[in-house]
Amino acid sequence: MTDLRPSRQRAAELDAADPLADRRALFALPDGVAYFDGNSLGPRPHAAGRAVNAVLDGTWGTGLIRSWKEADWLRLPFATGDRIAPLIGAPPGSVVACDTTSANLFKALSAAVALRPGRTRLVVDADDFPTDRYVAASVADQHGLELVAVPAARLADALDRQVAVLTATHVDYRSAAILDAAGLTAAAHDVGALVVWDLAHTAGAVPIDVTAVGVDLAVGCGYKYLNGGPGAPAFVYAHPSLQDEVRQPLSGWFGHADPFAFEPDFRPARGIARFLCGTTGVLGMASLHAALEVFDGVPMAAVRAKSVSLTSLFVELVRDALSSSGFGLASPADATQRGSHVALSHPDGEAVVERLAARGIMADFRPPDLLRFGFAPMFNTHVEVVDLVEALAAV
Amino acid sequence: MTDLRPSRQRAAELDAADPLADRRALFALPDGVAYFDGNSLGPRPHAAGRAVNAVLDGTWGTGLIRSWKEADWLRLPFATGDRIAPLIGAPPGSVVACDTTSANLFKALSAAVALRPGRTRLVVDADDFPTDRYVAASVADQHGLELVAVPAARLADALDRQVAVLTATHVDYRSAAILDAAGLTAAAHDVGALVVWDLAHTAGAVPIDVTAVGVDLAVGCGYKYLNGGPGAPAFVYAHPSLQDEVRQPLSGWFGHADPFAFEPDFRPARGIARFLCGTTGVLGMASLHAALEVFDGVPMAAVRAKSVSLTSLFVELVRDALSSSGFGLASPADATQRGSHVALSHPDGEAVVERLAARGIMADFRPPDLLRFGFAPMFNTHVEVVDLVEALAAV
Repeated sequence: MTDLRPSRQRAAELDAADPLADRRALFALPDGVAYFDGNSLGPRPHAAGRAVNAVLDGTWGTGLIRSWKEADWLRLPFATGDRIAPLIGAPPGSVVACDTTSANLFKALSAAVALRPGRTRLVVDADDFPTDRYVAASVADQHGLELVAVPAARLADALDRQVAVLTATHVDYRSAAILDAAGLTAAAHDVGALVVWDLAHTAGAVPIDVTAVGVDLAVGCGYKYLNGGPGAPAFVYAHPSLQDEVRQPLSGWFGHADPFAFEPDFRPARGIARFLCGTTGVLGMASLHAALEVFDGVPMAAVRAKSVSLTSLFVELVRDALSSSGFGLASPADATQRGSHVALSHPDGEAVVERLAARGIMADFRPPDLLRFGFAPMFNTHVEVVDLVEALAAV
Repeated sequence: MTDLRPSRQRAAELDAADPLADRRALFALPDGVAYFDGNSLGPRPHAAGRAVNAVLDGTWGTGLIRSWKEADWLRLPFATGDRIAPLIGAPPGSVVACDTTSANLFKALSAAVALRPGRTRLVVDADDFPTDRYVAASVADQHGLELVAVPAARLADALDRQVAVLTATHVDYRSAAILDAAGLTAAAHDVGALVVWDLAHTAGAVPIDVTAVGVDLAVGCGYKYLNGGPGAPAFVYAHPSLQDEVRQPLSGWFGHADPFAFEPDFRPARGIARFLCGTTGVLGMASLHAALEVFDGVPMAAVRAKSVSLTSLFVELVRDALSSSGFGLASPADATQRGSHVALSHPDGEAVVERLAARGIMADFRPPDLLRFGFAPMFNTHVEVVDLVEALAAV
């Protein structure tokens, strides 16, 4: 077996010099566990637990119904959105947290296709996370559009003036390949189509500047790199120029211009608020809102640098130490093309993940043969990467 | 002022004989507060706080991603639905908890109108809670149907063979008037239409037997009488004969027959699971699931008897002690026609509610002149009713 001692020494030096090293202490990480699933479910920030208990004991337990106004529960989806906005290059007031990624994608796609009446196609990444494909198919069906599912590499070729909307996930959930958001958005706009980006594996780990890219609409997930908790609220972004123009079909009272006026007819709120639907789930929202504190004052460039450093160390060590053990790299070798997780292929992938688990190392398996390792810049360390490679070599 | 001492004596006797008296201790009710807003936001059951902390510290904090299977997070929407089912006369497996009432109404109405192709109208109660009207209007618009909004008393007259679906809330959110669910459902079925009932002010307070009534689809709220917490997950019921037939447009991965097979095309789950969409919000769901423990072993007949006793005492005392002070009864005088809250009209309603709040009595105001008092059978007492009337007389 390859001697990993020099790598361990280097990893320790990288951790010692890590400007984000202090972030790890903000999380409740169980003893004896190395967690490489932050891309699936982020661990609990201490602040999230405190915030949820403040709801249980304080604003719900004691404040009761008054807390909708007095504890600003009504503002919570916007306050949470404003903490997500800088992570994706969005201006304040352009992101709202609510519902699930799937429901928000339904809203965003429905809103987008309604802005392009007469066009006949909805283009989706054929390799996209299944829920995105399912929702895109439903929206296409509802609007009488043809769903065109093409592999990521051919998305640009599928664009023409019959395309109403292009939707894809910015970072592939299996390979972590980063799609060219700027290029695809520009290409879509060139033919008059709109884009809806899913930022599930982007927000909190990979920079994107939705303003500079000119993204029309985007959705994303609150429970992966944002660490909001299992099934945390998701989010929606809409470009400021579209916010007062779009209509989405989930026209619940929280998206009304004046929810407590109890008007008989729906009048959409101005701005991003019209993407709300029903009553905010406060426990989950309070958790996500507080979880985002770990990003306070952290530039996305620093997050990205640490992410690249972690995944690059892993890819290098896999190549050096594991290539003879049947492991293949199923993620881009070029770090600039790779998000914050790394996928390996191995014919016994599922058994390998189980053996890792027995050693307190948590990662996940995606059929047929993919092992995924999330490297979350806010809490994973370089030494953990070396431990992981050592364990992979041993199992 | 009327002497309320005899009433207080009688109220104390009623409380002493109350078979649900032990339920109150299951709730965290703040000191010095009399809470008559359980119809808007139920107070926190102790079990809910414990369950949420078990997620924070245990299943999320320590179990992490493994908890989806090992802690049965995946089953939680069904386990929660199965606790709601007996409250509404539904069989096990026919109710699932998820999303918001508004989103669930969108799903249920979309599913229902799709089962009646060729029909041209969607009938909604014109006095319904606004979100129901907004969502019904959106579904009508999406499906090219005419939205027919008529007052509750004329719903039956609006039914003919052009009507695809009738939707209404079983208990009116303002007056607490109970609609004739059985009669309206039968009338709708007579013309071949489907019914979608909103049980927001029913579940946990007013009995309904969706099986006996033959309800097609129903939705309801988790944060009112079910005490699941602010913005708790809502629920959906579908008649067993429809469950494998309906399709709803929010086709997210949790509603797929095999969510973790990552199939490219949507294949709806069998049964009520197809009403799920995105990832379950576990914090809110765990809270609702645990909150429902307060109903364990409590027959709905007992809940209803206590509710009628509380509201009847209030109505009687208002008539005896407050009719000369400008208060009018805005709820049915006949208890059999009344849900579990009572609305009074008063020209200075908003100021009255504020003055009550200053005395630690929480109720709510609905423009233009309605004061609403929720009498939750699981924690309110008859003596609190007398205190309330005394305070109303004083302010």
